Amino acid sequence: MVKKAAGTTRSAGKAGKKYVYLFGKNMSDGNASMKELLGGKGANLAEMAKLGLPVPAGFTITTECCVDFFKGGMKNPACLEAQVNAAVEKVEKKMGMKFGDKVNPLLLACRSGARSSMPGMMETVLNIGLSSETIPGLVKKTNNERFVFDSYRRLIMMYSDVVMEKAEGIEPASGLGIRKQLDGIMEELKKSKGYKSDTDLSVVDLKKICEDFKARVKKELGKPFPDDAVTQLWGGIGAVFKSWNGKKAVSYRRIEGIPDDWGTAVNVQSMVFGNMGDDSATGVAFTRDPATGDDKFYGEWLINAQGEDVVAGTRTPNPLNNCTRNEQNKHLLSMQEMLPATYKELFDIRNRLEKHYKDMLDIEFTIQNKVLYMLQCRVGKRTGAAALNMAVDMYNQKLIDGPTAVMRVTPTQLDELLHPILDSKAEKKAQDAGLLICKGLPAGPGGAVGALAFTSEKACEMGKKAPCILIREETNPEDVEGMRAAVGILTARGGMTSHAALVARGWGKCCVVGAADLHIDEHAKTVKVNGKTYKEGDMMSLNGSKGHVYAGSIDMIDASENPGLKKFLKLVDKYRKMGVRANADSPEDAEIARNFGAEGIGLFRTEHMFYGKNSEKPLFALRKMILSSTLEERVKAVNELFPFVKKDIMATLKAMKGLPVTVRLLDPPLHEFIPHTKEQQEELSKSIGITLKEFLVRAESLKESNPMMGHRGVRLGVTYPEVTAMQIRAILEASAELGKEGIKCIPEIMIPVTCCVQELKDQKAVIAKVAEEVKAKYNLRRLNFLVGTMIEIPRACLLAAEMAEESDFFSFGTNDLTQMTFGFSRDDIGGFLGDYLDKGILAADPFQTIDQDGVGYLIKHAVKEGRRTKKDLKVGICGEQGGEAKSVEFCFKAGLSYVSCSPFRVPVACLAAAQAAIKAAK
Amino acid sequence: MVKKAAGTTRSAGKAGKKYVYLFGKNMSDGNASMKELLGGKGANLAEMAKLGLPVPAGFTITTECCVDFFKGGMKNPACLEAQVNAAVEKVEKKMGMKFGDKVNPLLLACRSGARSSMPGMMETVLNIGLSSETIPGLVKKTNNERFVFDSYRRLIMMYSDVVMEKAEGIEPASGLGIRKQLDGIMEELKKSKGYKSDTDLSVVDLKKICEDFKARVKKELGKPFPDDAVTQLWGGIGAVFKSWNGKKAVSYRRIEGIPDDWGTAVNVQSMVFGNMGDDSATGVAFTRDPATGDDKFYGEWLINAQGEDVVAGTRTPNPLNNCTRNEQNKHLLSMQEMLPATYKELFDIRNRLEKHYKDMLDIEFTIQNKVLYMLQCRVGKRTGAAALNMAVDMYNQKLIDGPTAVMRVTPTQLDELLHPILDSKAEKKAQDAGLLICKGLPAGPGGAVGALAFTSEKACEMGKKAPCILIREETNPEDVEGMRAAVGILTARGGMTSHAALVARGWGKCCVVGAADLHIDEHAKTVKVNGKTYKEGDMMSLNGSKGHVYAGSIDMIDASENPGLKKFLKLVDKYRKMGVRANADSPEDAEIARNFGAEGIGLFRTEHMFYGKNSEKPLFALRKMILSSTLEERVKAVNELFPFVKKDIMATLKAMKGLPVTVRLLDPPLHEFIPHTKEQQEELSKSIGITLKEFLVRAESLKESNPMMGHRGVRLGVTYPEVTAMQIRAILEASAELGKEGIKCIPEIMIPVTCCVQELKDQKAVIAKVAEEVKAKYNLRRLNFLVGTMIEIPRACLLAAEMAEESDFFSFGTNDLTQMTFGFSRDDIGGFLGDYLDKGILAADPFQTIDQDGVGYLIKHAVKEGRRTKKDLKVGICGEQGGEAKSVEFCFKAGLSYVSCSPFRVPVACLAAAQAAIKAAK
Repeated sequence: MVKKAAGTTRSAGKAGKKYVYLFGKNMSDGNASMKELLGGKGANLAEMAKLGLPVPAGFTITTECCVDFFKGGMKNPACLEAQVNAAVEKVEKKMGMKFGDKVNPLLLACRSGARSSMPGMMETVLNIGLSSETIPGLVKKTNNERFVFDSYRRLIMMYSDVVMEKAEGIEPASGLGIRKQLDGIMEELKKSKGYKSDTDLSVVDLKKICEDFKARVKKELGKPFPDDAVTQLWGGIGAVFKSWNGKKAVSYRRIEGIPDDWGTAVNVQSMVFGNMGDDSATGVAFTRDPATGDDKFYGEWLINAQGEDVVAGTRTPNPLNNCTRNEQNKHLLSMQEMLPATYKELFDIRNRLEKHYKDMLDIEFTIQNKVLYMLQCRVGKRTGAAALNMAVDMYNQKLIDGPTAVMRVTPTQLDELLHPILDSKAEKKAQDAGLLICKGLPAGPGGAVGALAFTSEKACEMGKKAPCILIREETNPEDVEGMRAAVGILTARGGMTSHAALVARGWGKCCVVGAADLHIDEHAKTVKVNGKTYKEGDMMSLNGSKGHVYAGSIDMIDASENPGLKKFLKLVDKYRKMGVRANADSPEDAEIARNFGAEGIGLFRTEHMFYGKNSEKPLFALRKMILSSTLEERVKAVNELFPFVKKDIMATLKAMKGLPVTVRLLDPPLHEFIPHTKEQQEELSKSIGITLKEFLVRAESLKESNPMMGHRGVRLGVTYPEVTAMQIRAILEASAELGKEGIKCIPEIMIPVTCCVQELKDQKAVIAKVAEEVKAKYNLRRLNFLVGTMIEIPRACLLAAEMAEESDFFSFGTNDLTQMTFGFSRDDIGGFLGDYLDKGILAADPFQTIDQDGVGYLIKHAVKEGRRTKKDLKVGICGEQGGEAKSVEFCFKAGLSYVSCSPFRVPVACLAAAQAAIKAAK
Repeated sequence: MVKKAAGTTRSAGKAGKKYVYLFGKNMSDGNASMKELLGGKGANLAEMAKLGLPVPAGFTITTECCVDFFKGGMKNPACLEAQVNAAVEKVEKKMGMKFGDKVNPLLLACRSGARSSMPGMMETVLNIGLSSETIPGLVKKTNNERFVFDSYRRLIMMYSDVVMEKAEGIEPASGLGIRKQLDGIMEELKKSKGYKSDTDLSVVDLKKICEDFKARVKKELGKPFPDDAVTQLWGGIGAVFKSWNGKKAVSYRRIEGIPDDWGTAVNVQSMVFGNMGDDSATGVAFTRDPATGDDKFYGEWLINAQGEDVVAGTRTPNPLNNCTRNEQNKHLLSMQEMLPATYKELFDIRNRLEKHYKDMLDIEFTIQNKVLYMLQCRVGKRTGAAALNMAVDMYNQKLIDGPTAVMRVTPTQLDELLHPILDSKAEKKAQDAGLLICKGLPAGPGGAVGALAFTSEKACEMGKKAPCILIREETNPEDVEGMRAAVGILTARGGMTSHAALVARGWGKCCVVGAADLHIDEHAKTVKVNGKTYKEGDMMSLNGSKGHVYAGSIDMIDASENPGLKKFLKLVDKYRKMGVRANADSPEDAEIARNFGAEGIGLFRTEHMFYGKNSEKPLFALRKMILSSTLEERVKAVNELFPFVKKDIMATLKAMKGLPVTVRLLDPPLHEFIPHTKEQQEELSKSIGITLKEFLVRAESLKESNPMMGHRGVRLGVTYPEVTAMQIRAILEASAELGKEGIKCIPEIMIPVTCCVQELKDQKAVIAKVAEEVKAKYNLRRLNFLVGTMIEIPRACLLAAEMAEESDFFSFGTNDLTQMTFGFSRDDIGGFLGDYLDKGILAADPFQTIDQDGVGYLIKHAVKEGRRTKKDLKVGICGEQGGEAKSVEFCFKAGLSYVSCSPFRVPVACLAAAQAAIKAAK
């Protein structure tokens, strides 16, 4: 029946491969489990047909065929033609119509359908089969000339755009897209006739439009619109295949992490028409409310329309039922009211589908002359709140078991629930209104709305009265007070692990960094963005999960009050096997972490006591220590610092109530802490007893070209053993005193930035000496503590077998490890990371998710080698990625004992760990 | 005979292990090949005795025994006592005397002797066996009371110091070292009597001294000097063992890279006495001249003296013969003159030994009452010139074969020959005079003497008239002219691979960097060092091979004129298997490299055309490019830059006459090139057409926190493909045009700083496009070039199998690889590297010699993985370590195809490569 297809070749594809799978009543070859081969849409169409639901017959060309199509240089595999011809014949028989027939013509739709939903990213051609041969017959048969020509003009529009211009690559002569031109023709006519809606167009109008369309296509694209059903069909199939590698699809895959070599299936399906008059309609629905998760049937429909009209938003759709009524559609009739019988049928289908799929579904249907047809069903997208509520509900309804419920909420969705966010509808509106003024990196989660403050001081002042957003070129430790006072932080420079980002995430605070379009004039207290200037006090809104910056206020919603959350997290913990700790730097953080379920602290950074509230005195002592140039000066400063460090550590150990606490010794390059104002510099030099000039010389000598690889971490401990000794004394005395109070704690001392075992030996000698002194001071027979190391330098990974000889535990510092493994400075990647992601050179920002090939190799190597030396070596991770789902899964697979992340990400890490365990058990 | 030794234990050492080896006429257990077990001295004493030379009988306690001594907690292995006793009995028999005997007492010496010579680093005790029991008999026997008490006071001095204070760890009560105290007693007496020399001391004086010594020892060390031969012997043996772990010995081993677990042997030998009167003497000699290598017997001797007197330098020693006469000793009689028969005997021994050992030897002898005894022979230390001349001479004399001759010159010695150096005697004198004002890192080889210049301009000006030394806080590209004009470069900051160091080494120029004690005031043009101030024009001398800085002028010698050099290098190339290329950045460097024997250029850095002579115009264009903010601006600047790049590359390709040239694409962080003076900034902004304010904003936005891990290398190429395209066009057009001239060249395009294969794919697409354009332009059917990558990021090593898919070659950039693997910024290691080396945390600076454990792991992994993908993948190294001997050997073992180093190190690399091949063939 279907004649020779263009571009068929014998070279691609094995003869005999089954490329075509039928679906329809009593004829489905596939089922829902075959998504990889048939794509989501095709598999579900087959499944619905198998369930006996009213699915218009059709067939699916497999994803494998698409892959072979590309392998063969964009030629159809040889055996495809015969298989398609056979399938079309069976569909014709089932539908009682014939494709390309003069009397009783069958029309077909070509739709894409990948394994994983890629909404709107690939192409569709409807109404295939309309031509000068078939039109008269269809007019006669339907007795609806208007419908036929409306369908015809739609076909010409889609086909000329999707097949001719995009897939065949014909450039319109005038340079303007053909679709736009045809839209213009139609608009012109409507305008000249004073029509408001497409439905006002008469048969005569539509006939004229079709003629004009065809003329324009020929003129612009240099060849006529094909007046032949078979050509149209193969054109449509090819266009769907090619749209897999269209620009939109490729960049969507990049973002979503969908592999390029999956390919798309093509679903060729008999057309049914929702635009055949007022007893016809089309609609979309969700089996439960996708925003809240409530167990209510939720949907919209349009009378006398085709599917695209619902999505296009030109007409306000009617509500499906009462649950779906809202402000916009409350005056419109529901399907429940207008077509109660058909609604009942649909509602029954909804119930059957949910019971069958055991999940909330997104369905599409068409009603042609009162007859209901199901065109699509798939698992529905949902908000975080909905995902969680439905998982808990369905688990309670015994529809799904525990592991399934746990798998139902993605870590991203859970994260959404833990922070107040911008209301997505309000955000969309702001975006449409052009208020999205720039984009940066999504550094701290959630949303924030507030008035701009340009300095830390101002933020503290403003923050007392009303929410403010601290805007800075980039932040430094001196900004910490203002950062705490602000509801959101916005910087023009810095990466995902810049100071601002680290601090903000640690607090679970909304933060956007590296918004390079911002030109901040701190002096004038203005910021210029693309020509517009904003000043202190102006309102802005941040979406910290997306990195969006909006002018003005946007409504917020707080999703964290969800009562299902605790229940869900309890369920999660039933399946989790790997430990989850928190990175916490203060007693307050420790408290939060424990409440969020952290099983210990994986990273306590002494140096954070030098930032923020109450930091003045310890910071002053630290600065004295840093600027000492003799052992004597330094010992004096170290002694001044000691009581602060001890107090801080003691409070944190206490807050964790016996749970393990890993204390990292002083890590950052010292230069970071040198004061910048002349006043502070003078005070400090006076206190040390040196001149300001001498002070400046010393400060200068601490400057480094690449501080991240400079004099920091254990290197400080090696050159200044007295600094190590002070910290050890603080930790062990704190622990000893708590022990006397009856609070048992085993501090884990962590030595950072090590690259060889000799460093550990050197520091352990210092530790052993202090431990003896502390034991003597408190008259103790033993003093329990562990000594381990951060593994954050590639060499430490490579020589992990040796490192383990002197380590009670390892903790991967994946921030630094990623920096060194890639040679990427996390503060400087702004210059190229965007291009790297856009061009697909990197699939993801390795500072957000562990690079499993490179950094992952080192981690796996280090775990293996370390445990070769010590079979039961405790191994954790305390880098930023410790709270990121894919990284958590990787850590689980790599055999890590625990992950440690910021307190606010503990639930997310727990979920990711549980999901990893569930996946592994399968 | 010998009684129970103190501290013997049964726990250490296997019973039955042979710990003691005899030597002496017809009784030697060992021979010269047993150095590992017997140490160098012991093995050679046995060998000499075997040859029938007059060696006083004795025995060697093995190095293995020393190791067991330490393993057993510093206790002698159980079976040692019996073996020593048996050996002493045999020695007694051979010498016809008895140890500890009242009538005919044998005296013994205890000397250390490790596998590898560690001159003066371990301890010796002579005259063991003198006590109140044996002294009267010895006086009677020798009829020389003065000799006996002179020997006795020497014994007490050595023993109380070496055994009691150092080995037994007794701290003198007064806190002052015992040796110093005893010296004081003797000096006191000499002074009170008006004596000038020790020989003026009478028997009465010496007896009094011995009594005073013993009283002081008892008072200060709390126990008497042992008046018992056996106790003295075991004390001596233990002291030698313990001196293996003495401070001096440990730090010497660290520097020389001698393993700690080798241990030392102890040589217990019958004493013979050069201090028995005027027919007794002691001397040291070299079988050839150790300074020049001339085939002349060379030595010194002292009448009526013990060995230590020759070394101590209190008396000017007599020349051995006429060849040894010099200004200092020309008035003194030679041995040849005074004792012609004994001299003849010694000269014959010299000839026999050289023939036997086939090398220049350092020998020690003693004459006791006209009888000659040989006390030591070992391979003699020599200067680079001597090593080379002797190797060539002995090869010509057919004394040694080719491989042996090649192995005879160390790479360090060869390097010495390639640069003018400070005269070592003059340098020693300056050091003794306190003129060594500070130390830095030995960044550029050889020596330099000149007047201080504080700016590049001044250096250019001064350099025209007389040699000058450029002194800077640290250098930057703008200093290059002055660096070229100066004979030496001195900086207060920076590491072995800082800008100054890199540039200096590239030119083979003397350079000391990171001399942190220098406080430079550029404005005042003064430098303050430890309280002293030096100003412009003041003379300084640099030893760039040691990092020493001297005030004033020191004599220089030029060793490079050696006529044997060419012959030797020809011999070297016969045995070399791995290729040697040069890192050269200009046609001039390329020329030098080729003359030095380089087989190609392994690293040609385009960016070096932006430094130094004639750099003004290209640098201006480069700066325009860097500061462009739109594609349009950038393309314009790139086009301006193009002709310079092309010209430079063409000249270099031409200079290499068809040898391979690897051109690295633009690598450094762009910010380096931004001009600092307002004038230049204004000129540049005008040329780009922007305001100075805008200029400063753009310049600021290019600043990076850690530029070494910032926007550089291939990352620039990815974000600015037009910059890659320009360079490729320059390379390929240059090559095409030379091809038309009949000069065949196959440029090797090298992409730097890659971390994943996608970067290579991205850049190769640009390269392919340009290649097509160039082919078309020159009407060529093919265009030969290779595309490879620098492997300098750990991740690239880990994923080398993938990298190789898109690479024709790999070249390890070990500078960056070392930085990332260790997390050490080479510019900032000054803050801790010293401590790391001092404390033995690192055995060597990894920027000087490849860290074989960490960086080496990555290199080996990358070679293996790369060749898994491409069996014949060409792999080289172009980092700084490519010219360092140990690294070259490592590269050979790792299977690299070639090493590439600075032109002046090419001969050194050739030698190291040849030696590696010879070693491997054994």
